[in-house]
Amino acid sequence: MKKLINKTENIVREMLEGLAEAYPDILEKLPDFNIIKRKTVSSKVNLVSGGGSGHEPAHAGYVGYGMLDAAVAGEVFTSPTPDQVLEGIKAVKSEKGVLLIIKNYSGDIMNFEMAADMAEMEDIKVEKVVVNDDIAMEDSTYTIGRRGVAGTVLVHKISGAAAEDGLELDEVKRIAEKTIKNVKTLGMSLGPCTVPASGKESFHLEDDEIEMGLGIHGEPGIHKGKLKTADEHVEYMMEKLLSEQKFSENEKTAVLINGLGATPLMELYIINRKVSEILKNKKIEISETIVGNYMTSLEMPGFSITLLKLDEELEKYLKFKARTPAYKN
Amino acid sequence: MKKLINKTENIVREMLEGLAEAYPDILEKLPDFNIIKRKTVSSKVNLVSGGGSGHEPAHAGYVGYGMLDAAVAGEVFTSPTPDQVLEGIKAVKSEKGVLLIIKNYSGDIMNFEMAADMAEMEDIKVEKVVVNDDIAMEDSTYTIGRRGVAGTVLVHKISGAAAEDGLELDEVKRIAEKTIKNVKTLGMSLGPCTVPASGKESFHLEDDEIEMGLGIHGEPGIHKGKLKTADEHVEYMMEKLLSEQKFSENEKTAVLINGLGATPLMELYIINRKVSEILKNKKIEISETIVGNYMTSLEMPGFSITLLKLDEELEKYLKFKARTPAYKN
Repeated sequence: MKKLINKTENIVREMLEGLAEAYPDILEKLPDFNIIKRKTVSSKVNLVSGGGSGHEPAHAGYVGYGMLDAAVAGEVFTSPTPDQVLEGIKAVKSEKGVLLIIKNYSGDIMNFEMAADMAEMEDIKVEKVVVNDDIAMEDSTYTIGRRGVAGTVLVHKISGAAAEDGLELDEVKRIAEKTIKNVKTLGMSLGPCTVPASGKESFHLEDDEIEMGLGIHGEPGIHKGKLKTADEHVEYMMEKLLSEQKFSENEKTAVLINGLGATPLMELYIINRKVSEILKNKKIEISETIVGNYMTSLEMPGFSITLLKLDEELEKYLKFKARTPAYKN
Repeated sequence: MKKLINKTENIVREMLEGLAEAYPDILEKLPDFNIIKRKTVSSKVNLVSGGGSGHEPAHAGYVGYGMLDAAVAGEVFTSPTPDQVLEGIKAVKSEKGVLLIIKNYSGDIMNFEMAADMAEMEDIKVEKVVVNDDIAMEDSTYTIGRRGVAGTVLVHKISGAAAEDGLELDEVKRIAEKTIKNVKTLGMSLGPCTVPASGKESFHLEDDEIEMGLGIHGEPGIHKGKLKTADEHVEYMMEKLLSEQKFSENEKTAVLINGLGATPLMELYIINRKVSEILKNKKIEISETIVGNYMTSLEMPGFSITLLKLDEELEKYLKFKARTPAYKN
């Protein structure tokens, strides 16, 4: 295992400390927990997300103005414990309440729900939404129903903006749920990543092989196949995505071309070129394009395409100002 | 070679098309050249940079408000031709003049200088600066004198802000040169990258081996050695950097922890933790920290640390607003 780390058991703490040191004006790490929160807790509806580590900048990189208020980080690819999530909720609780944004993995669902119950027993108002944007498959290794992947970042963005705009908890939740309904993602991988605790590659692909629909923890996808041209892979993926999320002419979409870790921006831009061409040919209007590493899987090579169908309300909150380490507009 | 591309000979064009499609409000690609320019050319001093491709987001990702006005992209790891650089200069020429920001590589120096001469023959006012921030070694494979690496991004940032602020060409050049004098970088690599045209890995390192001071084109560094802990590598690199760029107590620095392509943000944050600790122990004030992939080498695993000593003027322009695809503040 060739990684720039110190002791494996300290990775998550040290990473969060390094992040907090980089943005001391806006972030702080709770001293005794692997939790990043905004330095100033506001009286608005506050948003808490998190999950296993290894998806950086998700989720701690999205804590800041217009997005999250706290992010709770489990060990690599491991859900944080209910106690830990509860600490995250308590750190940013407000009169208006807290919204939990959970990626759909069985461990996360169980632990965040337990934390929500515990918070309610302490008279904290809590609601939750579950992101399940991955169209690759229905149930998977760690999931009942569809997995939550890169689309989660857009849920952070839009519901964070709605909360910053002063909306009440039920309204922020409604907008988060509309975003979840409208956001679809499909990814593919060119190779494995190595979870530090195991020290071994998470799966094997041949030199000319890819896996379509692979999950962000290396869990199996739809099928393996030969590496083709970028355009051929994009055509296949866009057909799948557009059959799941129908658009009429002149409807608007946001596009997120997300790198899984080791895929250069050069390749992500080449992918975006084809995505953009396909959307234009179908007269679907691209309101916003985001290209980069937003929901990664350590150093996995690969990418995902996310489409988010926008109405006026979602577009307004997508364009709303965000100032976080990893998402600024 | 496992890359998400179409034809090798179209990589640079398709990449720039995909970038321009993602930011249609601020950027455009010149139809017949691999050049990205700002959509609206202003009457201020305009900045042109560029060089070989494969360092994305450098340089086209830094075209926009407060940084560059045009970026000229050669083939992967290959300088753009003088004709092409001239087209970049002509595309953003202004009464106040054009400043060329060149990374110190023999090919780039030759071709950008030739383009500057050609532009002057067309009565365009042109000045140039050469970035040579890499302290790893004096002359190297492609360079007489020190190489230009990640510190170039901070030169774009600060001189772009000075130009946006309305300063004259000689003043923007003076500020760019002060930045260059004050910026020092040292990098290390954990493995090779693959240049698409060759299809082969650019060099070889053993499973437990790193190379200190490796260049952003895979050219040899100071020495090979064993992979140690992140903290040990950072201590060595910071000692080298701080012996090159002396700080008195309470002087200010900017820090750029730059990923070379395949190194996860998780590891870059762990590196920043130690960098930040060392600077604090020496009572050097950290004015700004930037962590991410800013000057890459395709999918090379590794990172560099850049320190930029700040005076009041440099700090003001570092904090000045920038709105580009890859750098926003």
